Amino acid sequence: MAKIAVDLMGGDNAPKAIEEGILQAVDTFEDVEILAYGMAGSYSGNHPRVTFIEVTEKIESDDDPVKSVRRKKDSSLVRAVKAVADGEAEAIVSAGNTGAIMSAGLFGVKRIKGIERPAITTMLPTTSGKGMLMLDMGANSENKPNHLLQFAQMASVYMENIEGRKNPSIGLINNGSEEIKGTELTKETYQLLKHSGLNFAGFFETRDILTGDVDIAVTDGFTGNVVLKTIEGTSSSLLGEVKKIMLKNPVNKLAALAMKNDFQELKNMLDYRQFGGAPLMGLQGNVIKAHGSSDATAIVNAVKQAKIMAESGTIDKIKDLIGEQND
Amino acid sequence: MAKIAVDLMGGDNAPKAIEEGILQAVDTFEDVEILAYGMAGSYSGNHPRVTFIEVTEKIESDDDPVKSVRRKKDSSLVRAVKAVADGEAEAIVSAGNTGAIMSAGLFGVKRIKGIERPAITTMLPTTSGKGMLMLDMGANSENKPNHLLQFAQMASVYMENIEGRKNPSIGLINNGSEEIKGTELTKETYQLLKHSGLNFAGFFETRDILTGDVDIAVTDGFTGNVVLKTIEGTSSSLLGEVKKIMLKNPVNKLAALAMKNDFQELKNMLDYRQFGGAPLMGLQGNVIKAHGSSDATAIVNAVKQAKIMAESGTIDKIKDLIGEQND
Repeated sequence: MAKIAVDLMGGDNAPKAIEEGILQAVDTFEDVEILAYGMAGSYSGNHPRVTFIEVTEKIESDDDPVKSVRRKKDSSLVRAVKAVADGEAEAIVSAGNTGAIMSAGLFGVKRIKGIERPAITTMLPTTSGKGMLMLDMGANSENKPNHLLQFAQMASVYMENIEGRKNPSIGLINNGSEEIKGTELTKETYQLLKHSGLNFAGFFETRDILTGDVDIAVTDGFTGNVVLKTIEGTSSSLLGEVKKIMLKNPVNKLAALAMKNDFQELKNMLDYRQFGGAPLMGLQGNVIKAHGSSDATAIVNAVKQAKIMAESGTIDKIKDLIGEQND
Repeated sequence: MAKIAVDLMGGDNAPKAIEEGILQAVDTFEDVEILAYGMAGSYSGNHPRVTFIEVTEKIESDDDPVKSVRRKKDSSLVRAVKAVADGEAEAIVSAGNTGAIMSAGLFGVKRIKGIERPAITTMLPTTSGKGMLMLDMGANSENKPNHLLQFAQMASVYMENIEGRKNPSIGLINNGSEEIKGTELTKETYQLLKHSGLNFAGFFETRDILTGDVDIAVTDGFTGNVVLKTIEGTSSSLLGEVKKIMLKNPVNKLAALAMKNDFQELKNMLDYRQFGGAPLMGLQGNVIKAHGSSDATAIVNAVKQAKIMAESGTIDKIKDLIGEQND
């Protein structure tokens, strides 16, 4: 039985969508128990495997991450993270303020010894169907070469352990594929990765971002965040234009009907909700960030992700492999 | 009559596609004269408004930008840029090595006094149809806040002058919209832009990259390059998937036929070739970078862009407005 703490108050559609997601999750996974942290009225369900824990505060999306976590000790997020720190839950899921989740994770469950910076890690969809792991998606604004090396190390463990991809290949996002191109950060990181013993495939240009030529794409948190939002923006604009075409006139509407299921599949492929949450890699506990606009389905998938992370023992393997190297 | 120098040897499809582009351009624009720089055999046309100038060298796509420009004095690129520097041509177009075009521009036509860094500037397509100007797309790997301020100033002049958009709005690309978010670079630039007298709209998230909510998106060269490639990669992957759906079976093929023209329009909207070349803003002459994979159509549009830039006197206006401010 995996015990997962969930923050009822975080996210654009909280608490209603989170509550629904929790109830769907316990229906879907028979071996999951949820500790649901929320303010009065945020949960009205009645399920034997959901325990509602009432708190008095919540962290807003525009709260200062560090200050709010320090001050709002009885917020749903801080309490849910504490459940992991105290060993009451094996993982925590929140769709709230990313910076605050990060701070709560750092203060609460702490970093793995030897890991300098945690990273938000997301599985991107690829046309090959395999998916590509990308990090950091925005836990950090600025990174040093050694941070990026550790991101690559952690991601390799994740991919072997969770996705079963042996010796996963790693690309380093850059503004060109030649070794001489790049910023100080990417050029120095290139050298570190080259001599890391990892399966380093060299610089990676984001022209190939959805083809999945590598298993893992490593970058700093600013770039990762901007790339993710560019993919989201480009694909939603394009799918919006496709939809306009399909509704343009009666002939198009009829033609679109014939291909409806196929287009739905494409839309699903790009749907962030299918990819579960984004784990914060590098912490001593499983902290999963769900998308800010999560609906119930997204929460179910984030809970699933939390359960897989908890059961896989990925954190222990990261500790063993990377913690040692840095001692 | 606008006189444009063209580098026949630069780009993935050179010299054949460039030659074709030149001949189409002089057919299309009756007031354009071309100085075509290439090695023996690179031009076999015969047109009264095209002058072929034979050179003995070319700069390869993987040549070191600075060294190659210094050493290959008789290369098509260096000679074509020299034509602008010497006042023989009003603009130069090349689809070759971006770094080398940049170096040749800096050595040859020189920077505008007071401008610290030139920037590659591209008009991105938007679903609103208006287009959005973005810079820097990769002239620089690393930038300082003052560079970004100057990019915004130059882009404002460009948008007023070339696109007729009065007091254009400016967004600064960031990993969040709140003022406290960002890197040192984006946070410091935010303050500069806020007090610049420009129409600053605050931080801009690339989730809106194709909606065109602002007229100008400013960023450093690394991020701009990565964002551009992410847009290209995402849209080409998606359109590839749409094509697969349309060819999947006889029913889909028939349905797709009904919407063929509409989809072609969408494809055209995203086609970099329609957007002409990317001007290197901040130089004392008009240097236009055409896409590396330019075909003849892309060259025609880059020549058109060169002609518009030359006729508009944009560079003189940038000199007047920004050169003065920085004296």
